[in-house]
Amino acid sequence: MSKKLVIGVMGPGDALQKDLDNAITLGRLIAENKWITLSGGRKSGVMHAVSEGANKAGGITLGILPDHSTDYMSDFIDIPIVTGMGSGRNNINVLTSDVIVACGMGPGTASEIALAIKAQKLVILLGLDKEQFNFFKRFTDNIYTADNPEDVITIIKKFQQNN
Amino acid sequence: MSKKLVIGVMGPGDALQKDLDNAITLGRLIAENKWITLSGGRKSGVMHAVSEGANKAGGITLGILPDHSTDYMSDFIDIPIVTGMGSGRNNINVLTSDVIVACGMGPGTASEIALAIKAQKLVILLGLDKEQFNFFKRFTDNIYTADNPEDVITIIKKFQQNN
Amino acid sequence: MSKKLVIGVMGPGDALQKDLDNAITLGRLIAENKWITLSGGRKSGVMHAVSEGANKAGGITLGILPDHSTDYMSDFIDIPIVTGMGSGRNNINVLTSDVIVACGMGPGTASEIALAIKAQKLVILLGLDKEQFNFFKRFTDNIYTADNPEDVITIIKKFQQNN
Amino acid sequence: MSKKLVIGVMGPGDALQKDLDNAITLGRLIAENKWITLSGGRKSGVMHAVSEGANKAGGITLGILPDHSTDYMSDFIDIPIVTGMGSGRNNINVLTSDVIVACGMGPGTASEIALAIKAQKLVILLGLDKEQFNFFKRFTDNIYTADNPEDVITIIKKFQQNN
Repeated sequence: MSKKLVIGVMGPGDALQKDLDNAITLGRLIAENKWITLSGGRKSGVMHAVSEGANKAGGITLGILPDHSTDYMSDFIDIPIVTGMGSGRNNINVLTSDVIVACGMGPGTASEIALAIKAQKLVILLGLDKEQFNFFKRFTDNIYTADNPEDVITIIKKFQQNN
Repeated sequence: MSKKLVIGVMGPGDALQKDLDNAITLGRLIAENKWITLSGGRKSGVMHAVSEGANKAGGITLGILPDHSTDYMSDFIDIPIVTGMGSGRNNINVLTSDVIVACGMGPGTASEIALAIKAQKLVILLGLDKEQFNFFKRFTDNIYTADNPEDVITIIKKFQQNN
Repeated sequence: MSKKLVIGVMGPGDALQKDLDNAITLGRLIAENKWITLSGGRKSGVMHAVSEGANKAGGITLGILPDHSTDYMSDFIDIPIVTGMGSGRNNINVLTSDVIVACGMGPGTASEIALAIKAQKLVILLGLDKEQFNFFKRFTDNIYTADNPEDVITIIKKFQQNN
Repeated sequence: MSKKLVIGVMGPGDALQKDLDNAITLGRLIAENKWITLSGGRKSGVMHAVSEGANKAGGITLGILPDHSTDYMSDFIDIPIVTGMGSGRNNINVLTSDVIVACGMGPGTASEIALAIKAQKLVILLGLDKEQFNFFKRFTDNIYTADNPEDVITIIKKFQQNN
C-alpha cells in the first residue's frame, strides 16, 4: 500500500474571482495526479472551489470543518472531518497536509501559512504578491511562489522526488 | 453524490484477543457495506485490527491520530488526520462519526462513548457486559448492545432506514 | 514561589439539588485551603455552584469555557479560558487539574472522569452510587468515593502528602 | 465583581534581546495596571520574560501551555493551562485575551496575530518594522504599532474607554 500525498489548499471564504478560478483548476490537477485534496470543507470561497475541481475530476476531497456539524459543508467534500473547534482546526489542516498551498489571502489563510512554516511543511503561495511572499520568506527557505496552478504541481513533483 | 456513512470503531490500544477478532470482522463488514471505517489510527489494538479488516476487504479507512505525525500510524490507514491533540482528539472521532461502536473497553473508549452520548450519536457496545451497558444506558435511549459484529451491522441498517 | 493545587470540579449543567449543595460547600472548602477551583465555567449547574462557593470564600476560580466567547460564563469566574472547542475542551479541564472531583453525573462528566483516568490523575467521586464507582474502578486504583465535601478535602490532603 | 482585562503577549521562544527587554517591561506595566498577563507559558523567550516582569511586579500570570504537562513551564507562571494541543493552542491564546500584543516575530507569533485579527481582537505590534505592520494592516483597521511598552499601555487604555 502506498500512502497518497495530501495537498492542503487554503484560501478565504470570500475569495476573489481569480483565486476561485485558480482553485478549481488546482483541484482538477491534484485529482489528476491521484493526490488527495484537503480544505477547510465549507461551502464557500476557495474551500468550495478546490473541492469542486477535484471532485469533478474524480479525486478524493477531505474537508476539515470548523463546525460541530456538516450543515455548512461543500457538496463536493467526500470525507468531512467534524472538529467543532472553529479556527483551532487550522493546525489540523496543516499537520494533516504534506504540502500547504495558499490560493488567495485573508487572516485565516495567513494563520495557516504561519502554522505550516512552524510545522516545517512545504508552502506554496499561488498568485500572491511579492510583499506577501517576503513577509513569510524571512521565517523559512521552504516556501515558493507560483504564478498559476500548473507551476504548483511542478513544485510539488520536485518536492516528491527529494522525499 | 451521496455521502457515505462513517462508522467510528473505538477500543483500547491493548485489547483482548476476542475484541481484536471482533474488530477485524467488523472492519470487513463495514467495508462490504461501502461505509467508511474511522478509528484512532494507531498501529495497535482495536484501531489497527478494524483498519486491517476494512482495508483488506477494499474499504476506506480513516485514522484520527492523537500524535503530531504519522510515525505510530497503522499501515492499514488510507487517510490519516494528524491532530497533535492527544486525547483531545476523541471528540473529533465522535463528531465525525455517524455511529460509534465500542469494541472492548478502557478509559479512552469510555470517554468516547460518553462524548458520543453527549453529541447525541447512535452508540453500539460490542461484546461488553451488562454492568458497562447499564452505566451508559442511564444517559440515553440511543444505545444498544451487540453480541457479535453481524448484529452491529443489523443495528446500523435499522438506524439508516430511520434517518 | 509555590504552585497552587488546581482542583477540577466536574458535574452536569442540569444538576440535582444535592449536587448543587455539595458543589457550593466544596468550592468554599477549596478556597479555604488556598487551592484554585477549576470548572467548565458556564452559568449553570455544578460549574456555577462550585465557582460561587469558592468565589464567596475569597478563592480563585478558573473557568474553561467550551464557547467562543464569555457570553454564557458564570459571574463567579475570575479567570475565563475561552477555548471555542465545545466538549473538546474536556481534556484541557483534566490536564490542567491536579485532582478531578465528580459532583453529580452526566455524559460530559463521565467523559471527564474517563479522560482523567487516562491521564493518570487522582479522581474523587462525590455522592455517586456504587455502580458508578465500580464502572470506573476497573480502570484504575487511583479513584476514591466521598460521601460529603469534607471527605473530598481529606482525600486531597492525603494525596498532597504523598506527592 | 469586575472582570480583569487579559493582555496576551506573544513572541518567539528564541527572541532577540530587545524583544526580551521589551517583554520584561511590558509585563511589569501590565501588572501595575492590575491586568492579567497571558502568554504561551514556556520557560523561554518572550513567554518567560513577560511572565517574569509581571510576576515580580505582583501581577497574575496565565500560561497556555502547548504541552501535556508543566515540565517546560516558566517559573513565573501563576496559573498554567495544560492543553496538550501543540500549536493548536494558539487559538485559545487569542480567544482568551482581550488584547493581543506581538513582541518580536516568528511563525508562531504570526499565526497568533492572524488568528487575533480573524477573531476581531485589538492587535498591537511592539517594536516591529513597517513591512510586518503592512502585511497585517490589509486585513483590519483594529491594529496598531507601538515603539515601546509604554505606548502599548496607552493604546490599551484608549481601547478600554471605548468598550
